[in-house]
Amino acid sequence: MTDIQKDNGIDKAIEKAVDFPGRGRTRGSAPRGRQSSKRAFGQRTTISPRLMRREEDIVPPAGDSIRIIPLGGVEEVGRNMTMIEYKNDIIVVDMGFQFKDEDTPGIDYILPNTKYLEDNKSKIRGVFITHGHLDHIGGVPFLIDRIGYPTIYTRQFGAIMVQKRQEEFPHLQPLDIRIIEGKETITCGSLKIKTFPISHTIPDSMGLIIETPYGNIVFIEDVRVDNVNGVPTEEEVEQYKQFKNMNNLLLTMDSTSIEKPGFSLSENVVVENIDRFIKDTKSRLVIATFASQVERIIAIIRSAEKYGKKLVIEGRSMKSNIEIIKHLKLVEVNNIIPLEDIEKYPPDRIIMLVTGAQGEEFAALMRIANKTHKYVRLRPTDTVLLSASVIPTNHKSVVNLKDNLYRSGAKIVTYLDSDIHASGHGNRDELKWIHQQVPYKFFMPVHGNHYMLCQHAELAYSLGKTKEEVVIPDNGSIIEIYDEGKKIRMLKEKVPSSLVLVDGFSVGNVQEMVLRDRKMLAQDGIFVIVVSLNTKTGKLKKSPDIIARGFVYVRESQDLLTHARMVIKKTVESTAEGMNPINFDLVKANLTDDLSRFLFQQTAKKPMVIPVILGV
Amino acid sequence: MTDIQKDNGIDKAIEKAVDFPGRGRTRGSAPRGRQSSKRAFGQRTTISPRLMRREEDIVPPAGDSIRIIPLGGVEEVGRNMTMIEYKNDIIVVDMGFQFKDEDTPGIDYILPNTKYLEDNKSKIRGVFITHGHLDHIGGVPFLIDRIGYPTIYTRQFGAIMVQKRQEEFPHLQPLDIRIIEGKETITCGSLKIKTFPISHTIPDSMGLIIETPYGNIVFIEDVRVDNVNGVPTEEEVEQYKQFKNMNNLLLTMDSTSIEKPGFSLSENVVVENIDRFIKDTKSRLVIATFASQVERIIAIIRSAEKYGKKLVIEGRSMKSNIEIIKHLKLVEVNNIIPLEDIEKYPPDRIIMLVTGAQGEEFAALMRIANKTHKYVRLRPTDTVLLSASVIPTNHKSVVNLKDNLYRSGAKIVTYLDSDIHASGHGNRDELKWIHQQVPYKFFMPVHGNHYMLCQHAELAYSLGKTKEEVVIPDNGSIIEIYDEGKKIRMLKEKVPSSLVLVDGFSVGNVQEMVLRDRKMLAQDGIFVIVVSLNTKTGKLKKSPDIIARGFVYVRESQDLLTHARMVIKKTVESTAEGMNPINFDLVKANLTDDLSRFLFQQTAKKPMVIPVILGV
Repeated sequence: MTDIQKDNGIDKAIEKAVDFPGRGRTRGSAPRGRQSSKRAFGQRTTISPRLMRREEDIVPPAGDSIRIIPLGGVEEVGRNMTMIEYKNDIIVVDMGFQFKDEDTPGIDYILPNTKYLEDNKSKIRGVFITHGHLDHIGGVPFLIDRIGYPTIYTRQFGAIMVQKRQEEFPHLQPLDIRIIEGKETITCGSLKIKTFPISHTIPDSMGLIIETPYGNIVFIEDVRVDNVNGVPTEEEVEQYKQFKNMNNLLLTMDSTSIEKPGFSLSENVVVENIDRFIKDTKSRLVIATFASQVERIIAIIRSAEKYGKKLVIEGRSMKSNIEIIKHLKLVEVNNIIPLEDIEKYPPDRIIMLVTGAQGEEFAALMRIANKTHKYVRLRPTDTVLLSASVIPTNHKSVVNLKDNLYRSGAKIVTYLDSDIHASGHGNRDELKWIHQQVPYKFFMPVHGNHYMLCQHAELAYSLGKTKEEVVIPDNGSIIEIYDEGKKIRMLKEKVPSSLVLVDGFSVGNVQEMVLRDRKMLAQDGIFVIVVSLNTKTGKLKKSPDIIARGFVYVRESQDLLTHARMVIKKTVESTAEGMNPINFDLVKANLTDDLSRFLFQQTAKKPMVIPVILGV
Repeated sequence: MTDIQKDNGIDKAIEKAVDFPGRGRTRGSAPRGRQSSKRAFGQRTTISPRLMRREEDIVPPAGDSIRIIPLGGVEEVGRNMTMIEYKNDIIVVDMGFQFKDEDTPGIDYILPNTKYLEDNKSKIRGVFITHGHLDHIGGVPFLIDRIGYPTIYTRQFGAIMVQKRQEEFPHLQPLDIRIIEGKETITCGSLKIKTFPISHTIPDSMGLIIETPYGNIVFIEDVRVDNVNGVPTEEEVEQYKQFKNMNNLLLTMDSTSIEKPGFSLSENVVVENIDRFIKDTKSRLVIATFASQVERIIAIIRSAEKYGKKLVIEGRSMKSNIEIIKHLKLVEVNNIIPLEDIEKYPPDRIIMLVTGAQGEEFAALMRIANKTHKYVRLRPTDTVLLSASVIPTNHKSVVNLKDNLYRSGAKIVTYLDSDIHASGHGNRDELKWIHQQVPYKFFMPVHGNHYMLCQHAELAYSLGKTKEEVVIPDNGSIIEIYDEGKKIRMLKEKVPSSLVLVDGFSVGNVQEMVLRDRKMLAQDGIFVIVVSLNTKTGKLKKSPDIIARGFVYVRESQDLLTHARMVIKKTVESTAEGMNPINFDLVKANLTDDLSRFLFQQTAKKPMVIPVILGV
């Protein structure tokens, strides 16, 4: 824990407290080494290798090479962040975070590791944000102070998203955000950056053209290709024309949907289908989608307006994004009514636009579905559109959501029944089409798990690139374009890349033990023993106290506890017998061993056994 | 914990232990009610409603009605078990289990609730096992003694699967298994049961025709329809002909893949494609599939034989199922070689058939991929076929697996690239086709989550059934066919249906508190405080002991612990001041409150705070 906010009420909480010296290590807890070796006995939980990376390679000087270093996002879908370094200048692309997974219980977010940037912050000339999604901006409030508050360059929508989030962290300094209009060139020391619009799901998504002495780095993160039945639209064709005669040194691109064949469904089709539902549904219509699907939300507002229907907005992120849409006047918004007025209109005049299509526990649709929403209950006459695919890690909650929705008797429509969702990440043939529009020398796939990057590399090979022209990076890999731009290589050294975790107020990378403990506690619970030991006689002073949580149901386990107390008494007294002074560490070690074995024999469970011995 | 095995070494473990009376509740632990209310403060984890079901409806007498009661498998994919009751006779169909999910951390398996059967065990005339998969047989060792060891009827392959599993539980009585040959009729009191073969993925899968005085119950669990491009094969057509002129009262059927449109890929195509890989691959070929895909495994053995290749089998369940295949002589097996001999043959002569296509932590392919396998390392020249789809709950582990496989440089082929996997559960049009082959009066969808059952019911409506002719059950629902078979209804009463969990040696349904504790511990850990209190002065006798696990990294949190000790001292002494005798419960309650608030203010985490006060 590196970041306790010490001045946050602590003095109040301990006012009038007398001085009471803390100790180096709590005497009550078992010695760490001991406890750890204990766990090796039939251990069930393991630590992911990414938690245990070596930390400090000595990075050789770059000389005249251009370095591209992905700090996150190339071993996972999430926490995208890449830095580009040339001589004395560094620019950063995106600062995202990732949500926790089963390897990181209790954690809030996972961040890119910025140690290398922190050590070189005087060289940072700017941060470029490609678009306003959390996996590209979520890290800003946690990391921007560490890298010295460099200027953030982004387009208008992204700028507001970054700014809105920053306001939730009032202790931070104001950000220096410069909004990019579109045509300008930004000079960052020896690097010049131009931008170009790309198709995604949120307004103002952009790619970068980073001009270097050896050619351009065309940096594309999340991208899809607007198309009609697999034929890219004129706008797309026009947009990519500029690359035809460019000297492009390196192309990077999103790999998220590389496994999906062909072209993805056009968002235009999705919008048309939802428009038809809005027009034709003769009862209350609930549309659930991601708040991040801003372009679709704009289309829904437009359709509702067109057919004279009223919109009710539910869900914090949905409301927040609609505020931005209104603020930027991206669509005329006249038809939103407050939730309380919902009954003032006939059901066929009402569209509810809500969050929670992934069954998130406290999101609007989930509260509606499981009948904990304050005002809204579903009726058998309602129609619910789930305008979202299932993110695999949300499978269980989406199943719960669908079960609950069906129990209401309402009509449920998903993207499996009807074309009401398209992804923001291009399928394989869309990515291939972009490869064909942008002539390039070297290729580096980004945005995805390692296997996705490998499949994206295979796509590049199939288009004629050789293995020497393609690099598949890991987080922390140092990619070097050297020999005046003629060659590309990945160094054997890495910059620090161990996980940086947000856990409450703590932001750091020293949580391995804590995470392992959480996983063990979730499996078998904890069994704390408090023993009062007469240090003169070596006998227990009273029956030991036992605190068991997450282990067995204590009320129905009195026999087990009675026997456990006998084991404790026997172990402590036989160890302490004749000892003077008593070796507390030995008593605790024996107690941990004997109790763990006893409890496993009796229950086939392996709770964390923690002895506390009080000498009296 | 209802099932501690008391005579399993307990006497040894406590030999020579003196008598030491246990106490009703450990004094050290906070009062349960108090602790619970504490948790309500900003609680993050919630208990799934299925854990908190009311338990004991009074079930009205059935009279002349036929009752069908699903005990599991109709609110989930897993733990399939249904009972059919007519007057004095009960038959049971399947006894499956389900694997744990995120709602049940640390649990081994989830079982159907058999309370109603236990109360009526004298009426049980037999258990029919439709096929040998764990979601249909896994509950047998845990439940068969509870329901009085009734005769188990099944076909040969299922019989061996049940028997093999039972051998892992040597303390149980031998099973009474009768193998059904195919043509016979089994009389279970007033019910007569015939069986018929159906297409699935494991040999000897069968459906049941349960003859009742009012007509037949056609009971189909897992099923697919062998087809060529959507046209059922002649064998399928022939098989279902028998139903044409039958008097079928009720049809039940698998709903697992109802969301998938059309017909599923034919297993024949899968087998042909794998055959081609076996023939054409000019290097070592690793094929990973589910051990439960027994028919595919037989085909792979046959292909390897055909092309003169040697088979290496890795993975316990794979080896076990191949033993059964050999034992039953389902295919001639001459070409299996021991793993140690793998280097004696050229790589293009070797096929490895392994478990672990879902990235299961200790399965063969995962060990090979992450380089922990004792003998086998992947080489860039190897080809790996993942002949399995991704079970959604395994998403993360499959991603890890694929990442590791790609790091080896081997060629990886998945079902997304090539048609090398088909499901055992028929898609919507297969189910529809079966509906059209079996004329029936009433329909009850089974095998799936509630929403799947609803979608399957919609399929029946689309074929002309009315809402009065279709029932959508929950686990524990009592379905009654009454009025001499003219009507069907679902009673408002239910039989007990709360979760029955296998947790180590414990098999029971009283784990709500334990599971909630495990979830809380996994989020924020535990913070135990041990205070020695001078009961005369109301002052602390020494600095309190603190045991924190899964909360913060203690070594880097000495400031926090020092301040926590001050809060403890202040709270305890100000509460105890002037009290005589000291109200320990009040001291503990205040301590829990103050410490929880303090820790939350400092860390934004909410560990479980447990005070132990020792009066000295």
